[in-house]
Amino acid sequence: MSKFRIGIVGYGNLGRGTELAIRQTTDAELACVFTRRDPSALKILTEGVPVYSVNDIAAHKNDVDVLILCGGSATDLPVQGPQLAEMFNTIDSFDTHAKIPQYFDSVDAAAKKGGNVSIISVGWDPGMFSVNRLYSSCILPEGENYTFWGKGVSQGHSDAIRRIEGVADARQYTIPVESAVEAVRSGSNPALTTRQKHTRECFVVAKEGADKAKIESEIKNMPNYFADYDTTVHFISEEELKRDHSGLPHGGFVIRSGKTGENKETSHVIEYSLKLGSNPEFTSSILVAYARAAVRLSREGAVGAKTVFDIAPAYLSPKSGAELRAEML
Amino acid sequence: MSKFRIGIVGYGNLGRGTELAIRQTTDAELACVFTRRDPSALKILTEGVPVYSVNDIAAHKNDVDVLILCGGSATDLPVQGPQLAEMFNTIDSFDTHAKIPQYFDSVDAAAKKGGNVSIISVGWDPGMFSVNRLYSSCILPEGENYTFWGKGVSQGHSDAIRRIEGVADARQYTIPVESAVEAVRSGSNPALTTRQKHTRECFVVAKEGADKAKIESEIKNMPNYFADYDTTVHFISEEELKRDHSGLPHGGFVIRSGKTGENKETSHVIEYSLKLGSNPEFTSSILVAYARAAVRLSREGAVGAKTVFDIAPAYLSPKSGAELRAEML
Repeated sequence: MSKFRIGIVGYGNLGRGTELAIRQTTDAELACVFTRRDPSALKILTEGVPVYSVNDIAAHKNDVDVLILCGGSATDLPVQGPQLAEMFNTIDSFDTHAKIPQYFDSVDAAAKKGGNVSIISVGWDPGMFSVNRLYSSCILPEGENYTFWGKGVSQGHSDAIRRIEGVADARQYTIPVESAVEAVRSGSNPALTTRQKHTRECFVVAKEGADKAKIESEIKNMPNYFADYDTTVHFISEEELKRDHSGLPHGGFVIRSGKTGENKETSHVIEYSLKLGSNPEFTSSILVAYARAAVRLSREGAVGAKTVFDIAPAYLSPKSGAELRAEML
Repeated sequence: MSKFRIGIVGYGNLGRGTELAIRQTTDAELACVFTRRDPSALKILTEGVPVYSVNDIAAHKNDVDVLILCGGSATDLPVQGPQLAEMFNTIDSFDTHAKIPQYFDSVDAAAKKGGNVSIISVGWDPGMFSVNRLYSSCILPEGENYTFWGKGVSQGHSDAIRRIEGVADARQYTIPVESAVEAVRSGSNPALTTRQKHTRECFVVAKEGADKAKIESEIKNMPNYFADYDTTVHFISEEELKRDHSGLPHGGFVIRSGKTGENKETSHVIEYSLKLGSNPEFTSSILVAYARAAVRLSREGAVGAKTVFDIAPAYLSPKSGAELRAEML
């Protein structure tokens, strides 16, 4: 069997993670990388794999079986998603939760027009966390879902701090409140405010002469990002930031506690948790597994947009149904 | 929309749990119960639902959309599974791991002959634990899976003790070794023997005049069941057994630790865990969710045997795709 061919669109953290994840498969290969930069200036890890301008992507329709879109959800994917779904099978990690229905519809129309399969919002949240929310809600209809994130680096919150005047660089950690996690695990179904679930810890490099008190106040009072949380701000040097905060660890928990029995007297707790050494490397490993599913579904004649909810787990594996039943059931 | 109709075959712990789980759904109803006992002597919880002899089941082909088979894997399901799959859509919790491939084939042939859908080996292990082993193996191809069970009552091990001469009753708990679980969670990929992973604790009611030392020795040396484990035996009174050990709690963990990165320098740990107040009530809640999937797949024209690996998560939910994307992704 020939390997299925993956094209990467966008070579940032997620694109590099995807390139590495493909190396861990037995049935996929990296066909090419598409970039908005000057292709001749982009050096990738894999020898002999061509880098093309994303402007020329239509010319490579027959070179790849599935594209993994590694752009951002704010501005890249809303345009690229539908555009590329008309020409290719695609996978993306669109993660603006509130805009998913609208994004799904636009990608779905394009994918159907082109006769392709596009799996959107793949990753861990949305993604594996969503799948776990769904499974456990279906199993325990009377219960509550709780999602905690961290401890980990939030790139969106780090970026928000960097936009403040006087800030040279910053790293923000989202931290679940241990007592809240324990209360949920106990099955007591607590009502928790935003502030009770997570704290935020910021490591900030200030520019020379900047007003640190003003920066700290601007961070702590920033609406949506920080105002609803207990936030701690530490000013550190650029060297300390590089030395102690250069990784992108993350993780979190999805917990459902629910009741069964004649009088709801029986408690159950289902928990799914992730401890990730690198958020982009883990996310891209999920993207590659779903790329396999997209190619298979497309070969079976499926078309349109899908989410992780629509993909049977067996489609993610290179093994046959008989192998999976014998080895993993 | 009319509710889909479930028939229960076998009214033990699992059958009663299924009856209770159906009450928590909005889209399913209990149509009837089939029993090997005298139907007129069986009192079920739900008013007005008929109880029939399992011998008359063929006459009720049009009364149910899906049967949930609540018999045991040792002797009931190997016969009932294929027999009933030819007449009905079915769900079962066949859990003899080594015989799953053979059981799948026999149910598959029968279901295809009858034009039905049968989802086999549904529950939490096999079942939700299997699904989690599969997802995390696909995401992190280079890594190790670890499954721990407990703390919980193993009915098979309790039964094995009850068969020993001089034993009036018994309850056996399987207990994961905390230090082993912690070693796995740390991402160190330890090699663990059977003895290092679980201990077994037995509460035994001896018959009057029985030789307790002999019973204890027989338990601890029983091959397959106890000989490979550190086993503790406590002799207690019948009253104590009833008072302290009448529940059927269970649970466990599926953990995968894996590596990514250019030189496998990045560690990730995925963990799925269950803390169950009642093993049969939780298992039957899963059976009912998959019954929904079987009915839907059957209405779409699917036929044959399936496992949890073959079922997209969305099929388990009464909600539409659009609702799921808006609320749960």
